[in-house]
Amino acid sequence: MNPSPNPHPESLSGASIRGGADWLRGKGAHGDVVISSRARLARNLTGYPFLCRATTEQRLRVLERVRAAAADAELAERTAWMDVHRLATVDRTLLVERHLISKEHAKGEEPRAAIISLPDERVSVMVNEEDHLRVQVLRSGLALDEAWAQIDDLDDRLESRLDYAYSARFGYLTACPTNVGTGLRMSVMLHLPGLRLTGEMEKVKRATKDMSLAVRGYYGEGSEATGDFYQISNQTTLGKTESVILHELAAEILPQVIEYERTARRLLIERRRRHLEDQVFRALGVLRSARMITPEETLGHLSMVRLGVLTGLIADVAESTVNQLVILIQPAHLQRVLGRELDQQERREARADLLRQRLGPC
Amino acid sequence: MNPSPNPHPESLSGASIRGGADWLRGKGAHGDVVISSRARLARNLTGYPFLCRATTEQRLRVLERVRAAAADAELAERTAWMDVHRLATVDRTLLVERHLISKEHAKGEEPRAAIISLPDERVSVMVNEEDHLRVQVLRSGLALDEAWAQIDDLDDRLESRLDYAYSARFGYLTACPTNVGTGLRMSVMLHLPGLRLTGEMEKVKRATKDMSLAVRGYYGEGSEATGDFYQISNQTTLGKTESVILHELAAEILPQVIEYERTARRLLIERRRRHLEDQVFRALGVLRSARMITPEETLGHLSMVRLGVLTGLIADVAESTVNQLVILIQPAHLQRVLGRELDQQERREARADLLRQRLGPC
Repeated sequence: MNPSPNPHPESLSGASIRGGADWLRGKGAHGDVVISSRARLARNLTGYPFLCRATTEQRLRVLERVRAAAADAELAERTAWMDVHRLATVDRTLLVERHLISKEHAKGEEPRAAIISLPDERVSVMVNEEDHLRVQVLRSGLALDEAWAQIDDLDDRLESRLDYAYSARFGYLTACPTNVGTGLRMSVMLHLPGLRLTGEMEKVKRATKDMSLAVRGYYGEGSEATGDFYQISNQTTLGKTESVILHELAAEILPQVIEYERTARRLLIERRRRHLEDQVFRALGVLRSARMITPEETLGHLSMVRLGVLTGLIADVAESTVNQLVILIQPAHLQRVLGRELDQQERREARADLLRQRLGPC
Repeated sequence: MNPSPNPHPESLSGASIRGGADWLRGKGAHGDVVISSRARLARNLTGYPFLCRATTEQRLRVLERVRAAAADAELAERTAWMDVHRLATVDRTLLVERHLISKEHAKGEEPRAAIISLPDERVSVMVNEEDHLRVQVLRSGLALDEAWAQIDDLDDRLESRLDYAYSARFGYLTACPTNVGTGLRMSVMLHLPGLRLTGEMEKVKRATKDMSLAVRGYYGEGSEATGDFYQISNQTTLGKTESVILHELAAEILPQVIEYERTARRLLIERRRRHLEDQVFRALGVLRSARMITPEETLGHLSMVRLGVLTGLIADVAESTVNQLVILIQPAHLQRVLGRELDQQERREARADLLRQRLGPC
């Protein structure tokens, strides 16, 4: 089916927003530790300057070309095309909060777009972000192989319809040299509350850095880890094949981190059960009691509640409820669910109301 | 009835400890702000040195004389005599936590005693504390007149059976010059969360100090205000009659403080309702969720819950429950209720368990 022209992300409203995307269901492999797996490709068209040097006219032509190619390539059963520069701020932020576009892509006023597969939101393409194309596949749990296979297929479909800037010596050419080569970034979002509570998080950070992997916070580059959610991704795109990048992350570092985290949780339950119960139930108690609350505080408590659910201490909350709340308590989501603009204080109140509604009052 | 010899405060065990003393029922006048009213007299016997200079032999003779006089004077329908120096530490602490004896009285190893009226615990006499006799009357709510009338009557009964050290020039003689004269200290325990939340507590403290009144914390002299509980008492015992002391506290300062506090609570409800609800329900949420908790943290939350109950925000908790918990969450009470000695960590756990049991889990 062709992408439908859509200046407003209607297709992300209502039930879809409240329910959350496919990758939030928490049913993926190793979902106790790995929230999601992501593959991302950076690509540019020949015959057009990189975006830092492109005119509005050139940007518009890139949009047109990608739009036609994407429609023809059938990236998913159903997709939506969104002219991001024409969206209201709240709708752009909504896409950022759902990890479908970057903060930078949301900010710009020059012509830019996003293609999103619906209703699963697994595939998204940013057009005219830092590169002409940024293709992303997002999967629930540990699914780097599947994400890589799918993005490789999407890349083939697009490449047979578009001329990519490619150098025999360097590989795919990109606006920023850190992406040159494969243009591939593989990453996972991990939930590591056990390692923080046992004080081992720094050790893991050092180990991943030694492996040339980047450890980032919940919102990617430059963001702090909030609620014990961490992104780990490859740094190097040049001089390594895709399969080597995949292997380093999937086979070498991740199994270890997952095992460390599980061991930490086991130790907490076995040796510090009361302490853990105290932290976990206090977190749930605050979420069920607060009448106003910031996103940062909420994420911190949701992290502990998720740990409580996964360790079996909390029986009356579903893991998927917690996963969805992580997304739904964000500013744009709150405003879309309530159907109107809210100032910061109103959002804090609406967030607390939503939490009590979903988790039950105290 | 005669005071019964009782080396162990059996009479304070079981239902009595769990239920709490008469002054905790919260049914007294102005009970929304005034927790309790207290009158205290310092008296010494002629023919015996002050206690800082008394031998053990002399102390024992003071005990004997007071014991006989108290029995004859019938201070209350039923009283218990306790040889404090023979009590276990936990039982001494229990009496301190119930505001029946002072920390100093609990500490000493030299012969000393306490007489307590049962089951109401309204009257208590410390024998061989700083002075030979410290007589106390404790009442629920604002009841300074009643407390004064009762202690005046008790004083007459004792004085007709004991020779008090008295100077025509100075009045009653006491070990510390700050008590010379009337030997009378009148005090009230106030709950002032509204004034703290509206930032007016410092103003009240200054005003009371200007009136030569002392503002102290929950545990009296030298203690910090915990959970917004404050003791206000007269400083001066010399050169003022009892009725002047009573009037200054009861007629001049207290009506104002009570009205300030009520106005503060009204303003919080009218202008910052969400904020107040947030603080009040978070406090209740933590008390209903914690699996270990310190006394200080507990008192802070109980103070907010009490405010929530009194302002009508919290409907499912009784004021008397909160008042009783203020006493019951203390170390010795926890240990007496559980019937065994507990270390600090065990007490934190037992305290959290008791709170969930009394307030209902989250």
